[in-house]
Amino acid sequence: MATEGFRPLDDKYLVEYIKATPALSLKLGEKLDDLQIKEVGDGNLNFVYIVVSSGGSVVIKQVAAAIPYLSSVSILTHGERWMLIEELNALPYVRCLGESWPMTKERAYFEALALKEHGRLCPAHVPEVYHFDCNMSVIGMRYLEPPHIILRKGLIAGIEYPLLSEHMSEYMARTLFFTSLLYLSTTEHKRSVAEFCGNVELCRLTEQVVFSDPYRESEYNRWTSPYLDTDAKAVREDDALKLEVAELKSMFCERAQALIHGDLHTSSVMVTHDSTQIIDPEFAFYGPMGYDIGAFLGNLILAFFAQDGHAVEANDRKLYKEWILRTTEESWNLFKQKFIAVWDEHKDGHGDAYLPSIYNKPELQHLAQERYMINLFHDALGFGAAKMIRRIVGVAHVEDFESIKDARKRSDCERRALEFAKLLLKKRRQFQSITEVVSAVRQLHDQIVEVIKFAL
Amino acid sequence: MATEGFRPLDDKYLVEYIKATPALSLKLGEKLDDLQIKEVGDGNLNFVYIVVSSGGSVVIKQVAAAIPYLSSVSILTHGERWMLIEELNALPYVRCLGESWPMTKERAYFEALALKEHGRLCPAHVPEVYHFDCNMSVIGMRYLEPPHIILRKGLIAGIEYPLLSEHMSEYMARTLFFTSLLYLSTTEHKRSVAEFCGNVELCRLTEQVVFSDPYRESEYNRWTSPYLDTDAKAVREDDALKLEVAELKSMFCERAQALIHGDLHTSSVMVTHDSTQIIDPEFAFYGPMGYDIGAFLGNLILAFFAQDGHAVEANDRKLYKEWILRTTEESWNLFKQKFIAVWDEHKDGHGDAYLPSIYNKPELQHLAQERYMINLFHDALGFGAAKMIRRIVGVAHVEDFESIKDARKRSDCERRALEFAKLLLKKRRQFQSITEVVSAVRQLHDQIVEVIKFAL
Repeated sequence: MATEGFRPLDDKYLVEYIKATPALSLKLGEKLDDLQIKEVGDGNLNFVYIVVSSGGSVVIKQVAAAIPYLSSVSILTHGERWMLIEELNALPYVRCLGESWPMTKERAYFEALALKEHGRLCPAHVPEVYHFDCNMSVIGMRYLEPPHIILRKGLIAGIEYPLLSEHMSEYMARTLFFTSLLYLSTTEHKRSVAEFCGNVELCRLTEQVVFSDPYRESEYNRWTSPYLDTDAKAVREDDALKLEVAELKSMFCERAQALIHGDLHTSSVMVTHDSTQIIDPEFAFYGPMGYDIGAFLGNLILAFFAQDGHAVEANDRKLYKEWILRTTEESWNLFKQKFIAVWDEHKDGHGDAYLPSIYNKPELQHLAQERYMINLFHDALGFGAAKMIRRIVGVAHVEDFESIKDARKRSDCERRALEFAKLLLKKRRQFQSITEVVSAVRQLHDQIVEVIKFAL
Repeated sequence: MATEGFRPLDDKYLVEYIKATPALSLKLGEKLDDLQIKEVGDGNLNFVYIVVSSGGSVVIKQVAAAIPYLSSVSILTHGERWMLIEELNALPYVRCLGESWPMTKERAYFEALALKEHGRLCPAHVPEVYHFDCNMSVIGMRYLEPPHIILRKGLIAGIEYPLLSEHMSEYMARTLFFTSLLYLSTTEHKRSVAEFCGNVELCRLTEQVVFSDPYRESEYNRWTSPYLDTDAKAVREDDALKLEVAELKSMFCERAQALIHGDLHTSSVMVTHDSTQIIDPEFAFYGPMGYDIGAFLGNLILAFFAQDGHAVEANDRKLYKEWILRTTEESWNLFKQKFIAVWDEHKDGHGDAYLPSIYNKPELQHLAQERYMINLFHDALGFGAAKMIRRIVGVAHVEDFESIKDARKRSDCERRALEFAKLLLKKRRQFQSITEVVSAVRQLHDQIVEVIKFAL
């Protein structure tokens, strides 16, 4: 039976569950009677509990089935959410174990698997998984204690994170390189590819919200109306844009380049001044590397364009905008540097892509790497642009803009971001370096700001 | 145990097996006592039996494990081959059923699966499968009765097949279109992709013999020595070529575009004047469409360059060479036409690549198709060129050239083919139509022939 072994956690059952699970109870120390439990739903059909004792802490996440467009269920009451979840769990899903076909596993399984795999490859920037219970869809993992906050909130608040580009580039370089054919044998790679094919439901969701809905009429689309009505319409009528998006979508669906996070925007990153932790890889699968890199860069650029909406007299955000652009630039440049460094380190390994017996001359190796990186760069720009567009005219928006209360001001910021994203998507192959991209951001921003000033 | 249920077929056991298998015995009619059995090994570790009765006929193929570089075992005696096969079967392979991980299934499984799937999509050009026995690695299928012969042998003999391009383009258009995201939903597609990831051993073999060995020193490589010694060396030292091959290899390994045959050269096709049948899809997996199309076109071009070696006073093969070029041209052009026709027919279907709600204008649909087809064309040219190169300086050669007894004459033919293939691989993106490609074939051939005449 589909729900065999599954039972929703509540405060009371959670304590029982922890006591019966050594991997969790050991993290909380001897005394389990003083547990402090706080439920912090993430707005999706997840329940996230922070559990703190005098001896330690854990986060316990219970993941329900993934259904498109229910991301706004946070407006439901606790009871209503559980009714919904129970309904979903009555669907003919098959739980994780003992089944031959991975397609029927559900997303908690893939989230836990990706956390473990990425954590193994980059433990400094991925929270440790203590426990995974497939039947219960429960993941127990490290609690990212205060002052960790969601990066997006930090960017809205105008906080600089001096190590962010260093850490993010390290995470991306290691997780992407070590799950690609630059490091893996074909056998290892295909085995993993097959396994993650099972995460198809969330791939479908991405296809719809990123690559489809913004380019057609959809009841789910929204934008800052009426200011962006013509802009949204222009996106839906832009044939050149649609042709580019089709190619990106094909790449997203067909190209199993590496185990990507699949949703690497700035709300999937928790930060302090000196810590960067990547969370929520529930969309993970073998896809194009550029999708992760683009998600991160694109969301930084969104944050940049949102800054004018957060500017106040006391703080015009000028310096902060420069910090964002510098971080964008460094994130790619450091990524490239680190990626090539691990490649060099492992070029004589058993990765099946570039055999040392063929690419055995330093200058040829260098040429091959440069070609690989420029292709990856263009992929990242394309995906980054698509991710920006969908946040402005698609279903799910970003707090960077949403928190700008004045709709006209918000729409001005959004329009600049949208214009830049369209340019980037269409002309991405003309950019040879991230410095050129950042210059184009600056140029477009200044131009439009001039136009607006002039119009006023 | 690995070999549970497996037993090698011999003439005697074959009769028992047929009698106990209704799907086979029904094809042979009432009287099973007059069976005529002929073993026609295919040079690989397969046993192929033609079984004919007064009431009908079948082919029964028993497939052993795939081990690289044993393709020349046809020199072994029957007894020696079975000793080898029994050794291979003692390896820790797991038979097809009851196992959760498709990776451990073996190649008979994928061959049967691909035959059935491609047969369903294009029954006119794929022999019907009557029976598949996974434990025995036995496939029972339609016997392609005389005068069917292997296409390659027909091309060597100088026989024209007026329907070849029509049939091959039909086969390629249907099998590739209907297994791609142009027709399938992401869910259907990923399910199949995952399944065929299990055919990894044969993918590895292709990677090695097509994309790796020709470009490095390898004990398996051979060429017409001493005449092509410098040519082979030039391939191994051609950095531009190696960079292009790296990109093709990545595409082969990463891009799950459609269920491809995986080995679509002219020995995988059986023909008569009015029948074309595609066999032996044991390399099938979800890969780039261009690999199949390129294999076929590339092998036609090899056949073209071999013709001068088959010319005799009574038949200079001039007209036949023109027929081959015309067939090459038509094969692509008809493929493109048929592929777009099925695409148009199913553009409002449930394929996830180009949603009708986005690509809803005829001119946009047309632009999208043109862009798709030109990319596919360039992929096909690249893969075709790589397949040509490997047949001249790699492990496995083609009878087109091998049957030219005079080594100097053979090497002249091979050199022209090799030069053309190198050009094609490096400059493929400059060709906008197959007519341009065929002109380049003709031009290079005539130039070099002139040079040779001049030198003599």
